[in-house]
Amino acid sequence: MHYFTYRGNKLYCEDLSVKDLARKFTTPLYIYSARTILHHFYKIKRAFTKITPLICYSVKANSNLSILKLLVDNGAGLDIVSGGELYRAKKVGCPGEKIVYASVGKTEKEIKEAIDYGILMFNVESLPELLKINSIGSLLKKRISIALRINPEVDVNTHKYVNTSGGETKFGMDLSTVKTILEENKKYPFVDIVGVHFHLGSQITEVEPFIEAIRKVLEVVEEVEESKGVTLKYFNIGGGLGIVYDKEQPQEIEVFAERISSLLEEKKFRVILEPGRFIVGNSGILVTRVLYVKDATQKRFIIVDAGMNDLIRPALYNAYHKILPVELVSSSNKKKADVVGPVCETADFLGKDRDLDVKEGDYLAVFGCGAYGVSMSSNYNSRLRPSEILVKEAKAYLIRERECYEDLLQKEKIVSV
Amino acid sequence: MHYFTYRGNKLYCEDLSVKDLARKFTTPLYIYSARTILHHFYKIKRAFTKITPLICYSVKANSNLSILKLLVDNGAGLDIVSGGELYRAKKVGCPGEKIVYASVGKTEKEIKEAIDYGILMFNVESLPELLKINSIGSLLKKRISIALRINPEVDVNTHKYVNTSGGETKFGMDLSTVKTILEENKKYPFVDIVGVHFHLGSQITEVEPFIEAIRKVLEVVEEVEESKGVTLKYFNIGGGLGIVYDKEQPQEIEVFAERISSLLEEKKFRVILEPGRFIVGNSGILVTRVLYVKDATQKRFIIVDAGMNDLIRPALYNAYHKILPVELVSSSNKKKADVVGPVCETADFLGKDRDLDVKEGDYLAVFGCGAYGVSMSSNYNSRLRPSEILVKEAKAYLIRERECYEDLLQKEKIVSV
Repeated sequence: MHYFTYRGNKLYCEDLSVKDLARKFTTPLYIYSARTILHHFYKIKRAFTKITPLICYSVKANSNLSILKLLVDNGAGLDIVSGGELYRAKKVGCPGEKIVYASVGKTEKEIKEAIDYGILMFNVESLPELLKINSIGSLLKKRISIALRINPEVDVNTHKYVNTSGGETKFGMDLSTVKTILEENKKYPFVDIVGVHFHLGSQITEVEPFIEAIRKVLEVVEEVEESKGVTLKYFNIGGGLGIVYDKEQPQEIEVFAERISSLLEEKKFRVILEPGRFIVGNSGILVTRVLYVKDATQKRFIIVDAGMNDLIRPALYNAYHKILPVELVSSSNKKKADVVGPVCETADFLGKDRDLDVKEGDYLAVFGCGAYGVSMSSNYNSRLRPSEILVKEAKAYLIRERECYEDLLQKEKIVSV
Repeated sequence: MHYFTYRGNKLYCEDLSVKDLARKFTTPLYIYSARTILHHFYKIKRAFTKITPLICYSVKANSNLSILKLLVDNGAGLDIVSGGELYRAKKVGCPGEKIVYASVGKTEKEIKEAIDYGILMFNVESLPELLKINSIGSLLKKRISIALRINPEVDVNTHKYVNTSGGETKFGMDLSTVKTILEENKKYPFVDIVGVHFHLGSQITEVEPFIEAIRKVLEVVEEVEESKGVTLKYFNIGGGLGIVYDKEQPQEIEVFAERISSLLEEKKFRVILEPGRFIVGNSGILVTRVLYVKDATQKRFIIVDAGMNDLIRPALYNAYHKILPVELVSSSNKKKADVVGPVCETADFLGKDRDLDVKEGDYLAVFGCGAYGVSMSSNYNSRLRPSEILVKEAKAYLIRERECYEDLLQKEKIVSV
């Protein structure tokens, strides 16, 4: 569900014509729909009513300040993974008690900054990290709240690059390590183990792996609680809910929620969710202008002004994004074409073998670009990172200005050696 | 060949200890050796003495201003692919007559900026682009110099993402299209076709594809020159010379040069070369600090403070980079480990199954990071892009400052919707 719809032959974002926006703000341009973002946030919230979880939006999916503010103003917490994301969380006034911090590589400086701000907890990914936080706590004479991130080693059917569960990934600790840490929690007097956490991966379309993981983790937690008098308060089941890019048929969120809630509602834990893509994925499009239509011997190439520096998902994950014209034409001159960017690299494509009928100057909309679009963008080929606008009903707000040439050089110095 | 060597157990860049540099400038840190850069530049120059080509360094490989200046000061021209790269070329005072401009997606604005600066020529990648440049020339009442980029469709043994030859890639035009354009050159009165260009791809270790391409292109060019009285001045054979990352055994540049020169020395053309990786690839290392050593059930993970946002080549191309300790230890406690970054993604690795013996706080050097390192870096996970230093003998120059949190937000605006 999203608020990008055709009225007649024209694509609209909520109540604004995408073509008008593209003309006004120029391309490449990311356009987000505020209603779509809120729709998904409240959809999760409603689905999980029974267990009233703390919903911590995963900042890495799309970290634009205005999007964070929109969610925080509507009651969301934030799931952060770096000092930079903490800085963003502060800027939008997210209360510390709604922030959870995961990452396999938190630096000492980052840990201290997060403690200073009074975040709810760290999701601790390894024993050495636990020792590090314990020693920082000792230094600060404070007990630091943490959850243990568990790698429940369940099978997840997703791209290997976004699968974070299994013994071959760097994330979390196996169940027996976690059990030992819980049993020996007195060894870490400056950490307060308040919960457990897992995160299975990204773009997961089935509920079964969640159920299996919850069961596995519950079993260990309950066993240790009983035998050792440990009491945990939080049960964080991460994010990773899949969305529709193409023909995926993800389990309905209501079914997800029902199945998960039924396992957890009788328990005393406060559940934490960390959705990212689910909230913003389909709330954004990337609008690009056709520069050239090139008929090569074996293929037609539609060369557009957005490239892999603006959206790396097709190159990096071989991800599929729907690509449609901003203005539909009635002609039947569609021809299979690769939609490619201006970057000097064969990896620079947005879509392959798409049936399109376009000419120079036309605009195309790349769908499903709300998550992992701008947040992964780069200046490769010395290209300027794109602008972003947020639309709410009939109003558009510029929430990120396009870079200019001078921005490219901001941190560089010319020296003669 | 490069000037990163161990003196005793300590890694040096030219005459400076890498560990001292890492401590002074903090990590993640890119360190370049100026002598290595110049060594490679002069190595190509010497190898091709017979045909005295114009060597246009490929800016996209590493576009830091100080590196461009170093090369331009030593006589190099520049191969650019965007308005941003033109802006850089201007900043370091590269004369227009040493600049060639390739890209499948040049915008009208970019084309005009390059004409204004008086670049040597555009490498034109398609018929629609030729028409666009012709119409801009007509508007400006100027004949614009161009070379036709040919896709010679030869087999190249390299990664599919950096192979730019073959009917399935977006680059260049097939030989028959080029022949027709040359024959009908009077149809384009505002372009002056001064040369031909091809670029086979990147990290090519054999000379044969070059020989085959040169022969194919020469045949067509000579046929048209004879029959139609066209005279071409430039013959641009692109870049793509492979370097040693691991066990590659690229053809020696002298052999490359000899074979290529023997085909072209009797001809009247000025040859243009566009090396990038060959010049800077092995002239840079990425230095990173070990944050945690994590023994998971199936694997050891060395978690370092540099991630895929700093160096995306391992994730994007499955590229191999040698990883060695900045200070060698004599112990034999080496254990196979994955060297991974702090980014919340399984794709975030720098190397897999490396035999290393390191502990928290140690520094590691990732070799072969001079090309496509910083130029492809991003702020993913709201991470700060790294600093870069250029070393010449016993002096180190900061040529790019590390970003700070405030930089992340520079173009963003907080709005309430």
